[in-house]
Amino acid sequence: MNADVQFKAQAIALGYDFDGEIKIGGNYTPLVRDGHHIYVSGQIPRVGDRVVVTGSAGGDASLSQAQTAAKVCAMRALALLQRTLGTLDRVTSILRITVYVQSAPDFTQQSEVADGASEVLFSVLGQAGIHTRTSVGVLQLPKNATVEIDLIAAVE
Amino acid sequence: MNADVQFKAQAIALGYDFDGEIKIGGNYTPLVRDGHHIYVSGQIPRVGDRVVVTGSAGGDASLSQAQTAAKVCAMRALALLQRTLGTLDRVTSILRITVYVQSAPDFTQQSEVADGASEVLFSVLGQAGIHTRTSVGVLQLPKNATVEIDLIAAVE
Amino acid sequence: MNADVQFKAQAIALGYDFDGEIKIGGNYTPLVRDGHHIYVSGQIPRVGDRVVVTGSAGGDASLSQAQTAAKVCAMRALALLQRTLGTLDRVTSILRITVYVQSAPDFTQQSEVADGASEVLFSVLGQAGIHTRTSVGVLQLPKNATVEIDLIAAVE
Repeated sequence: MNADVQFKAQAIALGYDFDGEIKIGGNYTPLVRDGHHIYVSGQIPRVGDRVVVTGSAGGDASLSQAQTAAKVCAMRALALLQRTLGTLDRVTSILRITVYVQSAPDFTQQSEVADGASEVLFSVLGQAGIHTRTSVGVLQLPKNATVEIDLIAAVE
Repeated sequence: MNADVQFKAQAIALGYDFDGEIKIGGNYTPLVRDGHHIYVSGQIPRVGDRVVVTGSAGGDASLSQAQTAAKVCAMRALALLQRTLGTLDRVTSILRITVYVQSAPDFTQQSEVADGASEVLFSVLGQAGIHTRTSVGVLQLPKNATVEIDLIAAVE
Repeated sequence: MNADVQFKAQAIALGYDFDGEIKIGGNYTPLVRDGHHIYVSGQIPRVGDRVVVTGSAGGDASLSQAQTAAKVCAMRALALLQRTLGTLDRVTSILRITVYVQSAPDFTQQSEVADGASEVLFSVLGQAGIHTRTSVGVLQLPKNATVEIDLIAAVE
């Protein structure tokens, strides 16, 4: 239960509620399980019906705001894993996260933005949260989100 | 054979022929099999020698044209799987698709573009076609393509 | 040892030294092993403390310079695999590389840039270096790098 306690602590620290988040239906799905791996769809910083950080990092959104966006994306991915698995303690490893940062043309701190997500994963999952990471600066994202993150988890 | 029949129906609906599409040789390859998984290289909406939708979504290409581009990319990926496996009925799951949309600066409907690919996968493969998805807006794509899609399939 | 000899030959040809490159610590890691698979974090063309090719392909960086950047990224990924495995001869397959090219708005030769990485992988690994590939043009990359590449390797 330790990872679940840490998840709750992170949610409180961010000031957002990650209950009631699983999107149902459509022709794609938030996650697909394949043996001991779970693929999680790209998550934007949506809480309820609202995208809480929008615009380009280094433009409309500050570095700090973009880092918050990355944290919310990571929390959404964790929320999905938690509900599927019953507990985040069953996550054994995060194999990869890809962090897409909507960037102003001269913004080159995509890694620093991604640090927000990496911090959340490590805080919640401990050693199981250490991961490989790719961070890139894109022109746009769905719903003008500042960050989008997908990941692959290994699970018991 | 059901998935193959649906594949043919989609090809007819799109008005394109997906025979003769496998690119051979070079230092990379259209797909790599690894046990029960197949990785498919990024597909642009090329039919024969022609990229059938080019330019940025929301700029040179309308949402509808970009959706068609996404459908063609998905069909190309399916055509590659079909030839390798003999039949698309051996696809058991699509683990992930990543949809790169060449976007005008203010175009934020990348998810709606990706719906074109998701519809094709579900129409052809049924439940096996439900997948996780990441959609992002990029500045450019090879040959000025409007959309590029890669995927990972689980197969028998 | 053959792949290791080829790796050294490529390093000499590029004129860069890939010793001493493994980044340690932080909340993410250069690679994660999962059974017979290794995920490698996104690599930029950094040699020692310096990013050796920066700016947009087709803008500040020529096609040739961008191809060199792609080669350096691929060499960095191989250097990481070599140190983890002891020898590159234990790489059995490269399942996927994703090549992000910082692009000028009208630059559409992302595939040609990626060829630099594909050549290195094939030169060093032979048949085991043949891979699936996705090449896209992004607005920016960390530290203004011209290219970023991640990959998944299958290993003994």
